[in-house]
Amino acid sequence: MTTRQTCLDRDAADPLGRTRARFRLPEGVIYLDGNSLGALPDAAAAAVRQAVERQWGQDLIASWNTHDWIGLPQRVGGKIARLIGASADEVAAADSVSVNLFKLAAAAVGARPGRPVVLTEAGDFPTDLYILQGLAGMRSDIELRVVAPGGIEAALDERTAVVLLSHVHYRSGAVREMAGLSAAIRAVGAISLWDLSHSAGVLDVDLNRDGADLAAGCGYKYLNGGPGAPAYLFVAKRHQSALRNPLSGWMGHARPFDFVDDYAPAPGIDRWLCGTPPILSLTALDAALDAFDGVAMAAARAKAGALGDLFIERVEARCADRGLALASPREAAARGGQVSFRHPHGWAVMQNLIARGVIGDFRSPDVIRFGLAPLYVRHVDVWDAVEILGEILDRESWRDARFQTVAAVT
Amino acid sequence: MTTRQTCLDRDAADPLGRTRARFRLPEGVIYLDGNSLGALPDAAAAAVRQAVERQWGQDLIASWNTHDWIGLPQRVGGKIARLIGASADEVAAADSVSVNLFKLAAAAVGARPGRPVVLTEAGDFPTDLYILQGLAGMRSDIELRVVAPGGIEAALDERTAVVLLSHVHYRSGAVREMAGLSAAIRAVGAISLWDLSHSAGVLDVDLNRDGADLAAGCGYKYLNGGPGAPAYLFVAKRHQSALRNPLSGWMGHARPFDFVDDYAPAPGIDRWLCGTPPILSLTALDAALDAFDGVAMAAARAKAGALGDLFIERVEARCADRGLALASPREAAARGGQVSFRHPHGWAVMQNLIARGVIGDFRSPDVIRFGLAPLYVRHVDVWDAVEILGEILDRESWRDARFQTVAAVT
Repeated sequence: MTTRQTCLDRDAADPLGRTRARFRLPEGVIYLDGNSLGALPDAAAAAVRQAVERQWGQDLIASWNTHDWIGLPQRVGGKIARLIGASADEVAAADSVSVNLFKLAAAAVGARPGRPVVLTEAGDFPTDLYILQGLAGMRSDIELRVVAPGGIEAALDERTAVVLLSHVHYRSGAVREMAGLSAAIRAVGAISLWDLSHSAGVLDVDLNRDGADLAAGCGYKYLNGGPGAPAYLFVAKRHQSALRNPLSGWMGHARPFDFVDDYAPAPGIDRWLCGTPPILSLTALDAALDAFDGVAMAAARAKAGALGDLFIERVEARCADRGLALASPREAAARGGQVSFRHPHGWAVMQNLIARGVIGDFRSPDVIRFGLAPLYVRHVDVWDAVEILGEILDRESWRDARFQTVAAVT
Repeated sequence: MTTRQTCLDRDAADPLGRTRARFRLPEGVIYLDGNSLGALPDAAAAAVRQAVERQWGQDLIASWNTHDWIGLPQRVGGKIARLIGASADEVAAADSVSVNLFKLAAAAVGARPGRPVVLTEAGDFPTDLYILQGLAGMRSDIELRVVAPGGIEAALDERTAVVLLSHVHYRSGAVREMAGLSAAIRAVGAISLWDLSHSAGVLDVDLNRDGADLAAGCGYKYLNGGPGAPAYLFVAKRHQSALRNPLSGWMGHARPFDFVDDYAPAPGIDRWLCGTPPILSLTALDAALDAFDGVAMAAARAKAGALGDLFIERVEARCADRGLALASPREAAARGGQVSFRHPHGWAVMQNLIARGVIGDFRSPDVIRFGLAPLYVRHVDVWDAVEILGEILDRESWRDARFQTVAAVT
């Protein structure tokens, strides 16, 4: 049977046990929200300070060359590439996930003339759906089709141009199988576009092995790039010369500093850049990625899976009959880096946890989520978090509306 | 006759003389490139450090509320609004200039059905042209018309949907008259879209007085927001309910945290947000804007004009017959915050200036630019810069190819 000591022993033997020291974590807090905002890597704080005070303050405009600001999107892309099974020249950091999904979906539609359908699944992360709605609203020849969960394969046909799918679902943490779906999409002549926001940095994503065509993802969750960190995008080499970025800003030009009137797309991944990137935020992401140095993503996934298994085991042992229902896959192989539960008073449960120093988050209407970032969450953190969750659920009557406000911390 | 002492006297009497102390400027450098990258405001360095170490590092995800990260785009927009003659609820900070121009131009086209023409002028800032080319490439019903400089008014007709114009030209610093052009554009039923990148923060821009419809601009030039700082956009109140942002990301949703599948645009300026903003870079811009506290933009413009007049006067006195040709309007009223000159070996001249600590920049093929940011450039800086320019031009034979490399600093 698992005890708190078992958890401490597992932490002592954890091959990723040393990466926690690369992060600054506040005292007295169990941080289980790295799937929403990753913790601060020590290197990121130092790098941002250097970028502000030395690079901007002292070296000023020359820093575009002397500190290679101009190469940051590709340099960061190269670091992310290793985490997602891509070549360095297939990934660049740029813009936000939303903007990148727009670029890629629009480009895919442009590359599949005569195919009007953009396909996705209901209940995926809202911005993904909204962006496709905006794209379809711009062009009367695009037809957005949103199918019920699980309905993608049946909906694929020769009218399909592009299919946008989350690799890991933001609410449940369920992993979508990438290789088979990418193959099915390719088999009808369509293009797959994967949102890696909830998988990169915690799963052993392997885009090229799994035949993905396009992808985009978030810099501020498991990549720990800081609040609103720039996002990234992936374009498989086989698509790089055919696809055109509709957001054809000067940073994607083949010769941006020639200042000519006509756009000429840069070769390779560079054409997916648009405007001038936010260097301070990008510097934080660049340095944050070094927290993955020496980390095998298979080991990261294994640890996240073990932490999730432990979380579920402990909830079922400690919080049985307390109104919690597992809302994530039970099998680690089918789960990303989080475990989610439903509770009729989920919001209030989470507020009470936060008041006790256990930071997870809540997603409407009734889901509480716990992110298990394998670089800094320990087994003992899971043990302690579930103990506190149990104490809260023991103490309160969650049927009583009075307890839907935050209980006083005692 | 002007002497160096006259310049010192003018600085002593300068009503903007105190704002220089709000910036960190390197020793031994005359920084005349604030039109490309503004200098570091002291407050920005402190704010970024606080945002990294306290807000991200300690308060983590809660900072979205406790430090109001979620309200930053509007808060920053409100500060910029004062500088450009807009209401606080007409401006938001978001994305890059390129992305914002795409949003606004596409929305304007959407609001003018049956009008196919997007109109702009050759030789404007490249990304503005490139973005319109990308938009036209997405939709076969859009016709991009690029007219020769000065040809806008003659090209306006009932087929025109939107006209994109730079307020101040990036190369020459020439100011485009806003009120008359905006009226002419409105008179044919079209929408004006102004790029304020080279005017906001140095001219007394007054969008509402001058009847502008839409605008976007840059955070990292005269606004001093740091390298690649987020940009901003303006939508006049009369257009806010009719125009739709095609980049309809979740931050522009009326209720982003309801996580529903259908996009519903937020009322007012909020709908122009798209993805999650880069908080660290946005924090720098937010704090940087406080350097404008107490600064009347008419005074800023007057000072920039006086510095430009002085620069031209000194070049013509000190560097006569040295191959420099004024490439900016001679009259301050027609000029933004920079003066530009052509020189057949402009690149080499600028490299030699930089080696002597005078930082301006070069724009292909032969233009050297000097930015005169009125918050931190002094009259004596202009005097000293032109003296050094004169020494460089005296010493070298610029017809000799050998001197096109950087001369040794003595």
